[in-house]
Amino acid sequence: MGRITRRTPARRLQVRPDGVLVDTRPDTLAVEEPLEIRVSGEPVVVTMRTPGDDFDLTLGWLHAEGHIRAASDVRTLQHCQDLDEDGRPTFNAVDVTGSPGVNLQVTPRATTATSACGMCGARTIADTRARSRYDLTLDRTPLDPAVLVQLPHLLRERQTGFDRTGGMHAAAIIDVRAPEPIVRAVREDVGRHNAVDKVVGWALRQDALPLFGHVMVVSGRAGYELVQKTVLAGAPAMVSVSATSSLAVELAREAGLTLASFVRDDRLTLYSDPDRVTAPHRDID
Amino acid sequence: MGRITRRTPARRLQVRPDGVLVDTRPDTLAVEEPLEIRVSGEPVVVTMRTPGDDFDLTLGWLHAEGHIRAASDVRTLQHCQDLDEDGRPTFNAVDVTGSPGVNLQVTPRATTATSACGMCGARTIADTRARSRYDLTLDRTPLDPAVLVQLPHLLRERQTGFDRTGGMHAAAIIDVRAPEPIVRAVREDVGRHNAVDKVVGWALRQDALPLFGHVMVVSGRAGYELVQKTVLAGAPAMVSVSATSSLAVELAREAGLTLASFVRDDRLTLYSDPDRVTAPHRDID
Repeated sequence: MGRITRRTPARRLQVRPDGVLVDTRPDTLAVEEPLEIRVSGEPVVVTMRTPGDDFDLTLGWLHAEGHIRAASDVRTLQHCQDLDEDGRPTFNAVDVTGSPGVNLQVTPRATTATSACGMCGARTIADTRARSRYDLTLDRTPLDPAVLVQLPHLLRERQTGFDRTGGMHAAAIIDVRAPEPIVRAVREDVGRHNAVDKVVGWALRQDALPLFGHVMVVSGRAGYELVQKTVLAGAPAMVSVSATSSLAVELAREAGLTLASFVRDDRLTLYSDPDRVTAPHRDID
Repeated sequence: MGRITRRTPARRLQVRPDGVLVDTRPDTLAVEEPLEIRVSGEPVVVTMRTPGDDFDLTLGWLHAEGHIRAASDVRTLQHCQDLDEDGRPTFNAVDVTGSPGVNLQVTPRATTATSACGMCGARTIADTRARSRYDLTLDRTPLDPAVLVQLPHLLRERQTGFDRTGGMHAAAIIDVRAPEPIVRAVREDVGRHNAVDKVVGWALRQDALPLFGHVMVVSGRAGYELVQKTVLAGAPAMVSVSATSSLAVELAREAGLTLASFVRDDRLTLYSDPDRVTAPHRDID
């Protein structure tokens, strides 16, 4: 795990009435390094990420940006032979080439945004809807609240990087078609967007899109971009441990995504549910 | 506060042995909307942000990207007159023009990254060092651990958006030159990068850079990009409630920034301190 976490000198201070207690011993940090994604040698984006699963990250990012629809759209994926100051390979650049007949758009991301001048929330959501290949309303997988509240625990048990550093986000794809949920993929990263891209990249390699019958589970908040990535991957539901946002909820409702946030212990808050969550219940008076 | 938070229908579910309790009442969400920054009419970046303080966000972002050195480098800042589908102004685009003699670089951000092909951590840090106008080692402000552990509380007391939504990050610039710390600026946003850009934008408008004698306090983690923004703004110290990362610590050490993370209750962990933190202390055996 040398490249995912790193030991470093640190001093832990505790402020007490009788003075400051100092404990000097190494601490474990989450590794954060830039990854440059190149298409046929042309740099298209740099993301700060935790090394590991770089190919999945690349596939997931290309998918979320609308550049590929399946892993088969990619002919080659390779780490570039860039060297650091000491002549060692950095493994911090990945080059992608498209399959025959596939025209990978190499437009840098910021230029992509250029076409959306005057964009408001409605425009952003319209763009996502236009790009999505999957109609989530076709997925009628029933979602049991008793299962949904388990999902963050299933993710948390597997967050080994977080256990060591306290500083990594995580995402999981969990199959909820059987009574016992099955964790299909878990990835951790300093960037929550990267963690989602990595599990979607995994799913692309399994040719598992759309992710009907699966829930995207994230360790933090469900912001617009994470909901967008989830919708584009064809998952019918998303569970987040923390809050969501206005635009994320609008997109979830438009797309027919079941969005449950603040999923903690035995509770959750449903912001969007096209009638998937089914359980005998009684209303609070 | 209509544009910062928004009420929305929601269902709170609690899973109990005897069934699922449902509480249907509106919830308050953090508003997330895209902001497009344009320079002389040319779009350069889109960021998902919480509306409000858009001019400060724009100034802070331009500064962090190396496009401006002071607020006086900007001649005009205005919201564009873009309309949404209902003909209402979106306020989701800001146009900037440079002052006479100031050549604002309008290169979109992804293209900026292009010049850093083969970038490793060392290269990234070297770029930051090259861009920084301020030598933090010149700031000898003593930092009392008993003061440092107060700073997250001073920020938390002012996080009114978080109180309502549970879903907003925050950043503060706090003056620690006197025995009683003085909170100079606090901003909240769904994006932690935006919150930092907004307080730096505020400081630019006050012509307060470098932020010698001040601490940048953030409600979440101190990742590389937040440390970079802090170093470029000339603050000698950064306090984060959550973890930091490998590259953030490397940059802090190179730049002479005092970096304290996991600052909670009466404790903190120091990852970098060029001899500013001074207090009588005793080591743990």
